[in-house]
Amino acid sequence: MIEVCLLGCGGMMPLPDRRLTALLYRYNGKMILIDCGEGTQLPIKMTGWGFKSIDAICFTHYHADHIAGLPGFLLTLGNSGKEEPLKIYGPPGLIEVVKALTIIAPELPFEIILIELSDGNLSTNYVGDIIIKSVPVDHTIACLSYSLEIRRAGKFDVQRAKKGNIPIRFWNRLQKGEIIEHEGKRYEPGMVLGRERKGLKVTYSTDTRPTEELADFCRGSDLLIGEGMYGENDQLDKAIKNKHMIFSEAAALAAKSHSKELWLTHYSPSLQNPDLYIDNAQNIFGNTITGKDLMIKRINFD
Amino acid sequence: MIEVCLLGCGGMMPLPDRRLTALLYRYNGKMILIDCGEGTQLPIKMTGWGFKSIDAICFTHYHADHIAGLPGFLLTLGNSGKEEPLKIYGPPGLIEVVKALTIIAPELPFEIILIELSDGNLSTNYVGDIIIKSVPVDHTIACLSYSLEIRRAGKFDVQRAKKGNIPIRFWNRLQKGEIIEHEGKRYEPGMVLGRERKGLKVTYSTDTRPTEELADFCRGSDLLIGEGMYGENDQLDKAIKNKHMIFSEAAALAAKSHSKELWLTHYSPSLQNPDLYIDNAQNIFGNTITGKDLMIKRINFD
Repeated sequence: MIEVCLLGCGGMMPLPDRRLTALLYRYNGKMILIDCGEGTQLPIKMTGWGFKSIDAICFTHYHADHIAGLPGFLLTLGNSGKEEPLKIYGPPGLIEVVKALTIIAPELPFEIILIELSDGNLSTNYVGDIIIKSVPVDHTIACLSYSLEIRRAGKFDVQRAKKGNIPIRFWNRLQKGEIIEHEGKRYEPGMVLGRERKGLKVTYSTDTRPTEELADFCRGSDLLIGEGMYGENDQLDKAIKNKHMIFSEAAALAAKSHSKELWLTHYSPSLQNPDLYIDNAQNIFGNTITGKDLMIKRINFD
Repeated sequence: MIEVCLLGCGGMMPLPDRRLTALLYRYNGKMILIDCGEGTQLPIKMTGWGFKSIDAICFTHYHADHIAGLPGFLLTLGNSGKEEPLKIYGPPGLIEVVKALTIIAPELPFEIILIELSDGNLSTNYVGDIIIKSVPVDHTIACLSYSLEIRRAGKFDVQRAKKGNIPIRFWNRLQKGEIIEHEGKRYEPGMVLGRERKGLKVTYSTDTRPTEELADFCRGSDLLIGEGMYGENDQLDKAIKNKHMIFSEAAALAAKSHSKELWLTHYSPSLQNPDLYIDNAQNIFGNTITGKDLMIKRINFD
């Protein structure tokens, strides 16, 4: 099972009743944070999931509403007792931006590992069993969308194991993914497992226009958390100009990518009641939900 | 009349139910902000006083809970339509810190004027009719306390004006503070005004140990907003170690400086209910109030 919490749903600036868009993702004792705007440490605290297990932050881009909360977050993370390294991923410029912002958080009890991702190609990284993929998107500055994927091995296939004369004492270790060399023979998990089963994929994509590459990237998401800066269809020109999306475009992206569920987020401060425009999305992609601060979903394997 | 709003009352980190300590001060169309921690733009918005008239920020020091909100604040200030320059005051290091933090707020529609204040001596600056005084205090890094003072001229003294043969047509201009040269004579406001009357003084002093110099600096404050990191008297050792104050020390400072009223603020996150310890302060200085987020006071001239 994975758990995701949409920490906030606002774009541009925090509002008294709407926190900035960011995502906290939890699987198997590991946690990943996507974006960290001003105040993001507060909804993290409110989840009750703790800070200490946050292993990585993925930044989409370096507009303040996505990164200004970093120094305060790092200090709070330090106070949580964290000692393991923290990985920070982001588009080129990461090293310079993090170095500048941490001028006010100069002493931390853990190491920070900075990984600048390509703004030209797809990247793949790993945090425990979580596969972090990123793709460049179409915003006013270098910007990435992320997918967090968990793969799921096939079921143990007794017939196959017997047919292949795999010693029974190795079955358990092979099922767990181990490769075993014994008396000159090599045994691999694939020899005892059936076909890989469907895993889980969550995609996070704000601050972009819809593109073909992005639809490919989102393909088959169990949950797509998508850009919904404007609700009304007649705000398309503004969305094109500012490199954002209207609700109906996010819905079309969800439909095209055969995603299972769409959460709209990253609302303009001028969009006071997103629910008023939900039809604009649901007419195109039925399973659209308007994101709210601290909305949580648990997703199980099929 | 001046108006002050304690924007938050927390120290170290923002909490879901407690914003970071900062002050918004308003007089005669001018506004001054003291400190700007993560999230401070939100209570400013909630005052309804607007952003555009904020002319200056005074930073006490560069710990993150006092300055991390700067980039987001500047962007919101830019969105408010501000075009006039913004003055920023703070102890040495200001230029380096502001330059670093504004890496994520690179384009603003107003000029920023940075004024580094002495961390060894008292400084005096002016924003309109507001006199900003600062004094170095005793914290773990360079840190200042501020007082914001309004002077009040004496009453118009008709007898004096007549006695001095001041032409009646100049009376009004002299009362307003103008100096007039006419037919080889020089007329000054002092020639028509009585003795200067009592003005208004608000002092803001967090993140310091109590010192003799600080008591001098706070002298005669109509309102002293003071450090109250810990409530219990037996936390004195911790306060000494971390260069903060306990409630009773802030109260002693208010008493010694003949201040009229004390607001405690900058509570440790561990201090969940400051009201439980108010007696520790009120036994020493009766007119002590525990600060709360968005507490507003209007102070009139006598």
